[in-house]
Amino acid sequence: MTMQYLTKALCWAMLLSLVLPCRAAEVNLMPWPSKLEQRPGFLSLDSPLRYKVIGKDKRLPNAVSHFKEQLSLRTGIASRAAEVTSSPVLEIRCQSIGPSIQKLGEDESYQLSVVPEKVELTAANPLGILRGVETLLQLVQSGASGWIIPALEIDDHPRFLWRGLMIDVSRHFIPLEILKRNIDGMAAVKLNVLHLHLSDDEGFRVESRRAPRLQKLASDGQFYTQQQIRELVAYAHQRGIRIVPEFDVPAHAVSWLVAFPKLSSAVPPPHVVRGMADGERPTLDPTLPATYATLDTVFGEMAALFPDQYFHIGGDEVDGKYWDRNERIQLWMHKQEIKDNHALQAYFNRRVQAILAKHGKRMEGWDEILAPELPKNSLVQSWRGPETLANAARMGYQTLLSAGWYLDLMFPASLHYAVEPLSGQSANLSADEQTRIIGGEAAQWTEYVTPEVLDNRLWPRLGAIAERLWSPKSITDVDSMYRRLEVLNRNLEWLGLRQRSNSRRMLYRIAGNVPLDLVETLASQVEPVKDYDRGNTQSYDVLKPLNRLVDAVPPESDAAREMTALIRHSIQDRSQRSELRKILIRWRDNDAQLAPLLPGSSLLADLAPLSHGLSVLGTVGLQVLNELDAGTLVTKESRNQQLAAVNESAAPHAELMIVAAAAIRQLVESQPLLP
Amino acid sequence: MTMQYLTKALCWAMLLSLVLPCRAAEVNLMPWPSKLEQRPGFLSLDSPLRYKVIGKDKRLPNAVSHFKEQLSLRTGIASRAAEVTSSPVLEIRCQSIGPSIQKLGEDESYQLSVVPEKVELTAANPLGILRGVETLLQLVQSGASGWIIPALEIDDHPRFLWRGLMIDVSRHFIPLEILKRNIDGMAAVKLNVLHLHLSDDEGFRVESRRAPRLQKLASDGQFYTQQQIRELVAYAHQRGIRIVPEFDVPAHAVSWLVAFPKLSSAVPPPHVVRGMADGERPTLDPTLPATYATLDTVFGEMAALFPDQYFHIGGDEVDGKYWDRNERIQLWMHKQEIKDNHALQAYFNRRVQAILAKHGKRMEGWDEILAPELPKNSLVQSWRGPETLANAARMGYQTLLSAGWYLDLMFPASLHYAVEPLSGQSANLSADEQTRIIGGEAAQWTEYVTPEVLDNRLWPRLGAIAERLWSPKSITDVDSMYRRLEVLNRNLEWLGLRQRSNSRRMLYRIAGNVPLDLVETLASQVEPVKDYDRGNTQSYDVLKPLNRLVDAVPPESDAAREMTALIRHSIQDRSQRSELRKILIRWRDNDAQLAPLLPGSSLLADLAPLSHGLSVLGTVGLQVLNELDAGTLVTKESRNQQLAAVNESAAPHAELMIVAAAAIRQLVESQPLLP
Repeated sequence: MTMQYLTKALCWAMLLSLVLPCRAAEVNLMPWPSKLEQRPGFLSLDSPLRYKVIGKDKRLPNAVSHFKEQLSLRTGIASRAAEVTSSPVLEIRCQSIGPSIQKLGEDESYQLSVVPEKVELTAANPLGILRGVETLLQLVQSGASGWIIPALEIDDHPRFLWRGLMIDVSRHFIPLEILKRNIDGMAAVKLNVLHLHLSDDEGFRVESRRAPRLQKLASDGQFYTQQQIRELVAYAHQRGIRIVPEFDVPAHAVSWLVAFPKLSSAVPPPHVVRGMADGERPTLDPTLPATYATLDTVFGEMAALFPDQYFHIGGDEVDGKYWDRNERIQLWMHKQEIKDNHALQAYFNRRVQAILAKHGKRMEGWDEILAPELPKNSLVQSWRGPETLANAARMGYQTLLSAGWYLDLMFPASLHYAVEPLSGQSANLSADEQTRIIGGEAAQWTEYVTPEVLDNRLWPRLGAIAERLWSPKSITDVDSMYRRLEVLNRNLEWLGLRQRSNSRRMLYRIAGNVPLDLVETLASQVEPVKDYDRGNTQSYDVLKPLNRLVDAVPPESDAAREMTALIRHSIQDRSQRSELRKILIRWRDNDAQLAPLLPGSSLLADLAPLSHGLSVLGTVGLQVLNELDAGTLVTKESRNQQLAAVNESAAPHAELMIVAAAAIRQLVESQPLLP
Repeated sequence: MTMQYLTKALCWAMLLSLVLPCRAAEVNLMPWPSKLEQRPGFLSLDSPLRYKVIGKDKRLPNAVSHFKEQLSLRTGIASRAAEVTSSPVLEIRCQSIGPSIQKLGEDESYQLSVVPEKVELTAANPLGILRGVETLLQLVQSGASGWIIPALEIDDHPRFLWRGLMIDVSRHFIPLEILKRNIDGMAAVKLNVLHLHLSDDEGFRVESRRAPRLQKLASDGQFYTQQQIRELVAYAHQRGIRIVPEFDVPAHAVSWLVAFPKLSSAVPPPHVVRGMADGERPTLDPTLPATYATLDTVFGEMAALFPDQYFHIGGDEVDGKYWDRNERIQLWMHKQEIKDNHALQAYFNRRVQAILAKHGKRMEGWDEILAPELPKNSLVQSWRGPETLANAARMGYQTLLSAGWYLDLMFPASLHYAVEPLSGQSANLSADEQTRIIGGEAAQWTEYVTPEVLDNRLWPRLGAIAERLWSPKSITDVDSMYRRLEVLNRNLEWLGLRQRSNSRRMLYRIAGNVPLDLVETLASQVEPVKDYDRGNTQSYDVLKPLNRLVDAVPPESDAAREMTALIRHSIQDRSQRSELRKILIRWRDNDAQLAPLLPGSSLLADLAPLSHGLSVLGTVGLQVLNELDAGTLVTKESRNQQLAAVNESAAPHAELMIVAAAAIRQLVESQPLLP
């Protein structure tokens, strides 16, 4: 962290770190707490932990079990922790009992004090204890004389009330146990809302007993039973996480229409959508009484199944053409004096809102639902851009930010980390309006995400977003974030998350009989293409496997980021060049060994241009490096040839790109030209 | 494989491989089948698999589910396999139904035919289908145009009837789910007996309802319920694996004595044994009627719980001192005219055998039970050496080999692979006597093995032993074995085995904030000390954590084996030296970065001498290499100094040793001396 952003407490900690150089660098908290003061010394975990819990909330015993289990896994020491009535080493105190259904805005603050003799974790509300236990686990480290917790004081609370993750379980169904381990991961970074996108054109993913056609005809057999949902809700509740269900209407609703063709605003589709090739995706007909009767039935049932106060109706991307082309709808609109499709959707939303209100829910929707007629207790989730966030707040609605946090777009953690909800237009809102910006959600759409891949799509970046939503606005140092994100990701594997182990297994699968190190040299330097570019070259199709290199590698390459930095430093700093040279030689030479092996496997064949490109980048880089060392000037023509070669190598292939090509371009341009 | 060992069929396959160079190298079967003929071409797995199963045994549907699930995991393609009644692509045929309790000696042979249009798997007995399905899975590979199975004919059957793995679950308890995933691994390499060492001085690990004191007082709360045992037996049965229980008596029986102090031949111990520090380990008193009454009760109950025909009573390492010192036992022996402790144990065994016979079981024991009086239907497990195997066979007993297959001794796979049951004295037995050698078992004692470590102790070597027990005697090529073992280990992770992922997580834990690559450079070159050497420097104690580098690394280092080969080749072959130099430079330079960081963590601190040693070996190696290149001769004195430095670096520290030190010594000795 750079000094300018540090709070007083952090300054103090940093100063202390000059006295105790091995200390401050070792605290790997993510999200960073609102107030932290490090102290000299530490508490030793050598003896079996004597602990005491004062408090009656039913989540506390689970929190303690979780702590004991994780402590044992992370240290590799079988737990012999013992509950005691006097002189505990770990004392957890929370007198109050939380509501049985977790509410938005519940107090999540906690105070943690570690001195060499004792750990005290206190909170006014049980959620604070759950958050504090995660902080405590992140503090456990191996010291010179054994496992320890460094002495410190933490006084922590979240910046935003709603800190969510949306997972689309419709495009690719995500089995329950994978949701569970990701809930554990969410708890570890103090997220508090799991928003499940449960229905879309591709499938309806919850058992309905009142309308069983939904899962029977429109899920391909992949859905959660009601029992599983109850289990999941309880599991999340234990971890201080709310579950908000989304059933997307009136668009993204082909699954509804497969079950109930009569509700369609156009020719009903023969089956759920399987991918881009299925072009026709009609919407619900908002003019039919049967539409609202069905929604009342299903939403009523789902409202009882999902206890949270909020209920998400989607409401995004309504393609008006299905209404424009339907004569009966046009006639009805004319009669009702509904002037356009936007007004028709507003009418639809008001009716849906009334249904939800009857079932005791507050309505939430994507930002397209924003309209003057929208009831004021609705919640607006901004995805199309930050201006809709500011608009919603200005118009009096509670609102959430998701724009800038779409994890499916494969952007680096640094980009998501830089997204600030109260910046841009939102910065100019009144204090009152700003309080309506209650938080945000990372969004994981799953067109290109299978259960095997999910963890590796989420976790290389989710910690950074969680920190933005929890920590003080001033915490923005990117290097520190990456350092702590790395440690977080290591430790998440103790929770059973598989972002690294699955990635590695997939790499083995792709390599097959080809030596892994040859594949890894390439794999470590590539990233999936960004934004919606994948769709340009690979049609989304749920029946096609996602087992290629683009699926195996993380969204962001640590090695590529380090290489980029090394190249840039080497331009000025000669001492970095020998290290750079080593890597460039490997780049240059890898293709000669790898290329002949690629055609032997369909999983490797399309990597040939990338492997060749890496070799070209290595060759050009070495050439420039030698000439820089020798002080040789370059002709304009020669440089242009080099740049052309670099640009060709930087082009995406197999939905992947060589990240450090941009830095090689800078290296080329750094060589002085012949006059 | 060298030509001299090849059967005719293999020769044919190898000849074919000259024509189709990309084919033969790609078949990674382990164990190698008794007869294999490769054909040109392959079957494509691109379309959803149409399969048909002809046969009624209840294990067949499970085998097919397993195949579908593993096929999906290994290829990364969601299963859309469909059962069809006509023109299947995969046809499985087995008309017979196997016995409900798997028997020793059941037919396990199968025939597998793959042509470009169809796979046919046939067997006379369902076990053959289970074995053949594993072969089929091992054949799946990524070809130039997608996933394929190469065309071939396999006619396969095991060499030995009993192919086992013993796991000691008494010293460290192993939870059920970990046993299950290891049963899956056993099935993958066609092992057919899981022998559980269920009681020892350290604990009694099965719920007894008739004698509940056993688990209540002598298990520290870690035991399998009867329901879990039934679940495990059924799980193993589905995979063609028998479960043989062992309850060790009359020694290794402190857990019995903690529950029943009156049965002790000396002062009864206050609690179960926790490690080497607990020196007193009395035996059961074989002179008391109560001893046999208790054994009858418990063995009767266990005989019903474990349906296998065999029941293992241990019988090893009876320390006679507890009988010598007990006056009442001495008096009783005198009265009964039992001349010595060996005879007393033989008496005990005859009575136990009668109890087991009453409960319908055949008795099995370690080789100490061998005595002329031993009933002839007993099974003798040889662990003290191959001569007891030959003796047992000669004396008319069925016998199993475990000597040479103790996985806890940390020997390399090549050593276990070279163990041949019918060699040495056994080679001279008559054909009839040889048939009494019915197989063997790898043995995993768990003094230094926790659940976290188990997979990584077993699987780096178990495939080699499984191959010795299944494949023709002629299959002995070590390079081929290592190549195929590597692929096997990759693929076992699809079954949920964690030998690699756990090892990696442990390495992360040990490294903490120290850069992983520095730790890995050292970790990849060390192996745990061999034989029983660990006990010399680290007392075994079940309450002490096993989370150090010696616990994280595999028993055998692939990198060290490759380095050893590289050093040896470099002595004659100059072209290898530039690669060797690169590695030696890394060895030399790693310590300068790593050493200052080691004292900061108790998990790293004791690695300092090893890290220094690696640096010394790098320095010496580079020096010799430079002089070899220059043709410089060395003085006797200078060489002796180098050898002294190498020897010091080769000494074990932290229960680890640098494996390639021996090859560096050879490198030093290869430099010509000054005359």
